[in-house]
Amino acid sequence: MSYDTDNIFAKILRGEVPSEKLYEDVDTYVFMDIMPRADGHCLVVPKTPCRNILDASPEQMAACMVTVQKMARAVMKAFGAEGVTLQQFSEAAGGQEVFHLHFHVLPRHEGARLRPPGTMADFDVLKLHADKIRAVLAAGV
Amino acid sequence: MSYDTDNIFAKILRGEVPSEKLYEDVDTYVFMDIMPRADGHCLVVPKTPCRNILDASPEQMAACMVTVQKMARAVMKAFGAEGVTLQQFSEAAGGQEVFHLHFHVLPRHEGARLRPPGTMADFDVLKLHADKIRAVLAAGV
Repeated sequence: MSYDTDNIFAKILRGEVPSEKLYEDVDTYVFMDIMPRADGHCLVVPKTPCRNILDASPEQMAACMVTVQKMARAVMKAFGAEGVTLQQFSEAAGGQEVFHLHFHVLPRHEGARLRPPGTMADFDVLKLHADKIRAVLAAGV
Repeated sequence: MSYDTDNIFAKILRGEVPSEKLYEDVDTYVFMDIMPRADGHCLVVPKTPCRNILDASPEQMAACMVTVQKMARAVMKAFGAEGVTLQQFSEAAGGQEVFHLHFHVLPRHEGARLRPPGTMADFDVLKLHADKIRAVLAAGV
């Protein structure tokens, strides 16, 4: 399967579509999922193109995981969470909806289930949640 | 949180507890999940100790992801799957049950849900599934 440069995350990376950005470094970019399954649910993507785990380079995966760890610690601190769930979906059968590699980072609280997928966030709330995470990152996790 | 050297995956790595091994290299080890949520559900772990994504080193994560990719391709081929779901749970609230870093690699078929967690495999079936994956790996994925 080939990479489609018109996918929504490619447009976000090119600045053609807005995102609630949390963090970036030379290799990765992080933004809020607009259909959050938990408060603080964010997405880590490589800045360079690849479709999913099946075609990613070792360098793209390694860079993403360093950022995943940073974000896991940050969202736990921002939301007082006791754990984190990481999900990555490859191809439609695997659960993938946008075909640019992305890792879901979900802060978790004891006994709290993830919300069902597919519900759009209130964007004012999403921004408040992003502000909390950005404040933690700014203070240094 | 600290690393408990008596966790079951540490025992598997030391050879004190059996596992349906699929693959190993210098840094990682792969074996069948004994409570598979899909046929071919396997676990990728680093050989060196760490608890989860919160304390893993960049090297441990990078090595695991290279093996995750290898296994994703192998289980898809072995089971004729069209996609893969990757899951990683950190701390009990995040869904973690064994406290040695592990990545769940789940082959997926269009329209087929994951089975509910917690059901023990038939070990003869598990071995047959492992044989299929080992055959794909032996042939080169």
